[in-house]
Amino acid sequence: MMRTHSAGTLRAENAGQTVTLAGWVARRRDHGGVIFIDLRDASGSAQVVFREGEMAEAAHRLRSEFVVQVTGEVTRRPAGNENPDLATGEIEVLATELTVLSESAPLPFPLDEHTEIGEEIRLRHRYLDLRRSGPAKALRMRSEANRIARNVLHDRDFVEVETPTLTRSTPEGARDFLVPARLRPGSWYALPQSPQLFKQLLMVAGTERYYQIARCYRDEDFRADRQPEFTQLDIEMSFVNQDDVIALGEDIIAALWKELAGHDIPRPIPRMTYAEAMSRFGTDKPDLRFGLELTDLTQYFADTSFRVFQAPYVGAVVMPGGADQPRRQFDAWQEWAKQRGARGLAYVTVGQDGELGGPVAKNLSDAERDGLAKTVGAAPGDAIFFAAGHPSEARALLGAARVEIAHRVGLIDENAWAFVWVIDAPMFERVRDDKGNDVGWTAVHHPFTSPNEEWIDRFEEAPDQALAYAYDIVANGNEIGGGSIRIHRSDVQRRVFDLLGMDEAEQREKFGFLLDAFQYGPPPHGGIAFGWDRITMLLAGADSLREVIAFPKTGGGFDPLTQAPAPITPEQRKEAGVDAKPPAGPGESPAAPAVAKPH
Amino acid sequence: MMRTHSAGTLRAENAGQTVTLAGWVARRRDHGGVIFIDLRDASGSAQVVFREGEMAEAAHRLRSEFVVQVTGEVTRRPAGNENPDLATGEIEVLATELTVLSESAPLPFPLDEHTEIGEEIRLRHRYLDLRRSGPAKALRMRSEANRIARNVLHDRDFVEVETPTLTRSTPEGARDFLVPARLRPGSWYALPQSPQLFKQLLMVAGTERYYQIARCYRDEDFRADRQPEFTQLDIEMSFVNQDDVIALGEDIIAALWKELAGHDIPRPIPRMTYAEAMSRFGTDKPDLRFGLELTDLTQYFADTSFRVFQAPYVGAVVMPGGADQPRRQFDAWQEWAKQRGARGLAYVTVGQDGELGGPVAKNLSDAERDGLAKTVGAAPGDAIFFAAGHPSEARALLGAARVEIAHRVGLIDENAWAFVWVIDAPMFERVRDDKGNDVGWTAVHHPFTSPNEEWIDRFEEAPDQALAYAYDIVANGNEIGGGSIRIHRSDVQRRVFDLLGMDEAEQREKFGFLLDAFQYGPPPHGGIAFGWDRITMLLAGADSLREVIAFPKTGGGFDPLTQAPAPITPEQRKEAGVDAKPPAGPGESPAAPAVAKPH
Repeated sequence: MMRTHSAGTLRAENAGQTVTLAGWVARRRDHGGVIFIDLRDASGSAQVVFREGEMAEAAHRLRSEFVVQVTGEVTRRPAGNENPDLATGEIEVLATELTVLSESAPLPFPLDEHTEIGEEIRLRHRYLDLRRSGPAKALRMRSEANRIARNVLHDRDFVEVETPTLTRSTPEGARDFLVPARLRPGSWYALPQSPQLFKQLLMVAGTERYYQIARCYRDEDFRADRQPEFTQLDIEMSFVNQDDVIALGEDIIAALWKELAGHDIPRPIPRMTYAEAMSRFGTDKPDLRFGLELTDLTQYFADTSFRVFQAPYVGAVVMPGGADQPRRQFDAWQEWAKQRGARGLAYVTVGQDGELGGPVAKNLSDAERDGLAKTVGAAPGDAIFFAAGHPSEARALLGAARVEIAHRVGLIDENAWAFVWVIDAPMFERVRDDKGNDVGWTAVHHPFTSPNEEWIDRFEEAPDQALAYAYDIVANGNEIGGGSIRIHRSDVQRRVFDLLGMDEAEQREKFGFLLDAFQYGPPPHGGIAFGWDRITMLLAGADSLREVIAFPKTGGGFDPLTQAPAPITPEQRKEAGVDAKPPAGPGESPAAPAVAKPH
Repeated sequence: MMRTHSAGTLRAENAGQTVTLAGWVARRRDHGGVIFIDLRDASGSAQVVFREGEMAEAAHRLRSEFVVQVTGEVTRRPAGNENPDLATGEIEVLATELTVLSESAPLPFPLDEHTEIGEEIRLRHRYLDLRRSGPAKALRMRSEANRIARNVLHDRDFVEVETPTLTRSTPEGARDFLVPARLRPGSWYALPQSPQLFKQLLMVAGTERYYQIARCYRDEDFRADRQPEFTQLDIEMSFVNQDDVIALGEDIIAALWKELAGHDIPRPIPRMTYAEAMSRFGTDKPDLRFGLELTDLTQYFADTSFRVFQAPYVGAVVMPGGADQPRRQFDAWQEWAKQRGARGLAYVTVGQDGELGGPVAKNLSDAERDGLAKTVGAAPGDAIFFAAGHPSEARALLGAARVEIAHRVGLIDENAWAFVWVIDAPMFERVRDDKGNDVGWTAVHHPFTSPNEEWIDRFEEAPDQALAYAYDIVANGNEIGGGSIRIHRSDVQRRVFDLLGMDEAEQREKFGFLLDAFQYGPPPHGGIAFGWDRITMLLAGADSLREVIAFPKTGGGFDPLTQAPAPITPEQRKEAGVDAKPPAGPGESPAAPAVAKPH
């Protein structure tokens, strides 16, 4: 090692020792011939002093981010010069030897923690951005998160298994990334959207307890916080029920938050049904750090003569103190609603005298006006926002308004953590054609998700009401994980496929090898996957997934650092077999290589 | 949980307890109305007895690999019925309840440990193959290997970082797998051959100690034991020299072998220069479990009149007791050599009287014959094999013959472990054109590999002799890891590029973003990567990488289980942008998305 000590570990006890440090020049200060540098390494930093004369002259060429090796004696700083904000603030190193290991050109941006820098330039020079203490700490924290989760799993006999990433399309809804197979021209691999099918195969294989911190790929139309490749902590267990998987999930989450956020999550984490979450919060990922629950006013307005409220669902959410907003604020709320695809956001203000104001109020009957504030829990000075229409859409709008209100009014305790399991998710939802006609059912999760005990023998009776053993865990309004118990009974599986209108050919095409496997004694099993980027983002207190990814991509799947993706040469294209004709139909494998014999 | 106990954990102490087990019917035996099954789960198996009457009738339908839940009382087996070969052999469970959780169709092959089964059918039904104790154990062992290595690294302050897998081509010699980028039509990602460039960027970023169990991709013409995707334990460190990296590497290897093979590797692991390995063993990955070193006879035959031995290099290896081989055996050796691209394998036998035999002997002078056996260390009854020609080719042939001889003669102790570091690898090798003319130099490793201290200032003087700080670790003749100290001085880097004839444009095209990064204070750094599939294969005592990969591919990159790769639909092709025109030339990015602002 080119150092005897890490800079950040030096303390007053080291005084008198001769040490060799190696690291970066974080700051250089000239004080009348004496030169001071902050020498930074992965452990922190320490002040190095180059005394007047030979040493100061040698140090004169040092610039920010030069890499140096320094030998010197650790001394206590002169009284009054200690820096209590710095772990090494009691000492300094009097340099007697200096070697410049490498130099640095002027930086494209200062590495100062508090400078606001555009993200594009940070990512283009991510190797400099990561020298800043915040980003560096986020990476180290993520490494610790991996270790903590693995320890929990190891203590419970889980087996870490790597599953293939050059594989077949998995039918999980998003687009697959594709990879041409040069050795079977015309054929393509797909990058997996998750290890779902492989982890179920491992259960059939008797692995019983599997986990993997797995890279997954989805070719989506990237929103700002989506990455084309992302990571999940993927888990599957055999001979378990929903409570077993939830208990394990809590063990992991509790360990992470305790060790990395210093937060003891009260156990068990509360559970809420999907229906309750939708009705009280308008979303399946409710942020429970604040109240502001929705009020269902459908009955209240059952006989209304106000046309807008003659709808299958009418609901409201209160904005405390919102009556005082100027008119242009209310107009901005309309814009906000329109951007979310709604026609607007009806509102009523409650005057200090209890009188209702705003354009909607005059459309209401006296009786409707009289009871309204009390029914929705509004006080004088509040505003009431309404949505009316199809329940799922109207609730989604109110749920989003609820969160927006909480931010604007400052109802959110940024230091609070609110976890909840959302359970009893629906099995199916209707598929509608272009004209809005019901044409069948689709699985809300994947079609291997098990109906719960109550519905397993009769989900056909009311597919829209049938519930699944499917569960999501939500932290502060973020879905951080989700999973389900899977179907292991072939009769149930067949009935689900029937309901989904999947004939045998489609089943085989989509899930052939899994169905084959399920012929041979599949155990009851279920699992969960945690969104690892999102969890580490929350633990890091970051507001973007990109902050906890070493080399993230921007919105369009573009990497400002490597400039990937990039054009390929005609030779690469030819060689990769991109334009080769696919082999003859399924069943035949003209290019199938002989399997090598084990030797 | 659907069980109270794991089957394999039951012992005599459990006698009297009522337990619930869940697992697979491994065997069923009917003994005059009483039915016995071996119930297998991940922990092992236990015997379950269904007594005559109701229970036996219920158990009658059980078949191999049915999944069952059984409740019953643990009892000691009747005296004389204990099975000392089974951990649970002292007890059995008297079933009082039986639930069939799922059924199994007749198996495509028996799960018996000792049946020889073709690999293709095993892999097609890998979910059954993995129920066999050998394959199941290999997967669990691999999981433990991960844990052990991570613990060593964690104890030494390493940070686990995930690097991108949708990235840009890395110039590492093999072909890249390519992925069309739908959102930037005409552009492609490449799957990384290793995290090499990213781990060096992390060193520039000040991470100092990085590791990752990383998936890597090489689109090679697969030999039997190559996989298109493979795993390496990837490590990089800053402020280190070669000895530091080697010491860490030994810590990992020693921990693995101690915990998983019960073998204490003597430390330090011996080192051998590349030159010595080539000259004594004809290979840079010598198997040191046996001797049979090559003898260099170039000087010995300096004045020979035998035309075949008038060559830049003549060498020999002895086959103990090989003189007795029948003529057709010697003919088979010629075939063996021809399959390796040689013209044949000259040999001489040493008779019991010391007289030399075989077709070559008569071409030698009396003096050459007289001293030969002694010079090569051959005893009466041995055979001597020769190779003559270009040193590297002739040595490679003798090196291969040496291993083949050791196998045939039984010189290899299959329980022995012989580790060696091969150091001082050459920096450069000549590039020859079609006509065999020297046209320049290429880097033996990648061009960021550092020349060693002796050569760093003068490698241009004799590029063919210049040595690198590059090191491989070899176990029983298998290269299980390798790495190097990297260049961090820009002047040295420039001289290496000059020697390689790479102009600035080529440097930028291949390594642009790394060179950019190296402008800003790169620390001295180096690293190593361990071939994780190969290491776990050795630890598992397996003879194929496929045995330690959950879902491996066969020789041609084909997965018999999922049938990947497969044709894609015209819609997928269109949507993925496979046939889109690439964007305009470098520098312009017409499709470059705006970077999302952090919020």
